[in-house]
Amino acid sequence: MNNNLLNDFEEYLKNNLPLSNSFHPIFQDSLQSMLLASGKRFRPMLMLCIVDAINPLLVKNSMSIALALEYLHTYSLIHDDLPCMDDASLRRGHTTLHKQYDEATAVLVGDALNTHSFNLISNSPLSNDIKISIIKIVSNECGINGMIIGQAIDCYFENSKVDIKQLEFLHIHKTAKFIACALQTGAIICNVNKDLQNRLYNFGLDIGLLFQIQDDIIDKTSNQKEALKTTQNDINKNSFINLLGLKEAIKSANKLSTKCQKDIKSFDINIQNNLNSILLPYFNKYK
Amino acid sequence: MNNNLLNDFEEYLKNNLPLSNSFHPIFQDSLQSMLLASGKRFRPMLMLCIVDAINPLLVKNSMSIALALEYLHTYSLIHDDLPCMDDASLRRGHTTLHKQYDEATAVLVGDALNTHSFNLISNSPLSNDIKISIIKIVSNECGINGMIIGQAIDCYFENSKVDIKQLEFLHIHKTAKFIACALQTGAIICNVNKDLQNRLYNFGLDIGLLFQIQDDIIDKTSNQKEALKTTQNDINKNSFINLLGLKEAIKSANKLSTKCQKDIKSFDINIQNNLNSILLPYFNKYK
Repeated sequence: MNNNLLNDFEEYLKNNLPLSNSFHPIFQDSLQSMLLASGKRFRPMLMLCIVDAINPLLVKNSMSIALALEYLHTYSLIHDDLPCMDDASLRRGHTTLHKQYDEATAVLVGDALNTHSFNLISNSPLSNDIKISIIKIVSNECGINGMIIGQAIDCYFENSKVDIKQLEFLHIHKTAKFIACALQTGAIICNVNKDLQNRLYNFGLDIGLLFQIQDDIIDKTSNQKEALKTTQNDINKNSFINLLGLKEAIKSANKLSTKCQKDIKSFDINIQNNLNSILLPYFNKYK
Repeated sequence: MNNNLLNDFEEYLKNNLPLSNSFHPIFQDSLQSMLLASGKRFRPMLMLCIVDAINPLLVKNSMSIALALEYLHTYSLIHDDLPCMDDASLRRGHTTLHKQYDEATAVLVGDALNTHSFNLISNSPLSNDIKISIIKIVSNECGINGMIIGQAIDCYFENSKVDIKQLEFLHIHKTAKFIACALQTGAIICNVNKDLQNRLYNFGLDIGLLFQIQDDIIDKTSNQKEALKTTQNDINKNSFINLLGLKEAIKSANKLSTKCQKDIKSFDINIQNNLNSILLPYFNKYK
């Protein structure tokens, strides 16, 4: 089922790229460039897999919400890669936007994708009540009390140490809350009760943290070609590797992975199957 | 009436500053800094004056929408001042954010204010139908087909000439559409008919263009101290002064000013009075 969902999403994305009608010779290309670069589409897929598991008839009308999540994720990558932040030159196997074009373009494309994600949500074929619920959570989890404060902490403490609790705070905010919000958004679209919404959200926090630890491990152990992005760039950064060492980081990842696999079993069988079809490759990656 | 509205808004702003609860030592201060710096609050005041003219009972419930407009305007100033764009050191009489803190902080504060404006709108005490209408228009006029493409054109053509039609396109998108959208948002809150919404929007486009021409004149004729921001920074920029010369630019400003004053008279008397109380100081500024 997953490949079908992913194909449908990729098709939807290609047919709904952001358009900017003006005499600017490269802005529209720059807007579309990083969206067209291959991505895992992890956040939209998590959201769609929940909708597909609970009420597959709603998948079609959820596509623009999925696209909005991909816009938000892409904007965050573009800004994170800027010279004043990670100063990365490779992303999704492509030259980063500020290298391909220039810094002003990268800042503005990020801004545009951020703002336009709310335009996509507000224009999606769902009820206004559902759309407002989605905007409330997305603007919170990707905003001041979510992704942005996480990135701000990551940048501010680049050359000074944080402790393990602070590192967890950093990554829960920078990465996990958005992933949790993607799962909850799927549940909101299907209008399920608050309890299931919260359970999916909390499960998403664990998945997000697992991913971040794995990302740190990839950054340490992979070369740029394998990772499709600038790696080994985090020597001075606060990472689970730098704080715990590689061996302990792998142990933490495996422990969290076991917890997530157990938690998946608490959901009904359709949700279990759909989550597993996306997440299995990420569980128990390290021996 | 205007001073009361402005005082109420300033009070509301001070009591509703963005909070970011974390161990980051300066992020919350940096978030609030440029909002607290004195601004004209032009966009929120335009919106509130329309609500006050049509249905004053709705003013109180419109405050968070007004604040969202100020967040969006402030984010755009912070990003426009970045080294990769205008590279300005003074704004609203204060050191620009990237100079006071650093570039990463300025990018992230801008991002945070952009995203959080949609959080404010979605949580405002208005009906979900009204809130979705507002989000649709705000995310469009401040986004890809509004403010952002205007700024992108401004940056891209910094060292090459555009013609007068292109300069108008630039400023309609960079400045006027947001101002037009502020007026229309007031009308949306009061649930007035589409015709009045459109007339206010179109009037806003003229006001926005008038402001931009006046801004170019200020930039040419004022020093930094008077303007409270970096001036005479636009030598290579496409401005009405550089394209038309100072004399013709003043003539254009006066012509547009006369048109706006005539158009105001087409609105009902309450709207006329409220618009005039904000706009009169800007009409016929130059002899």
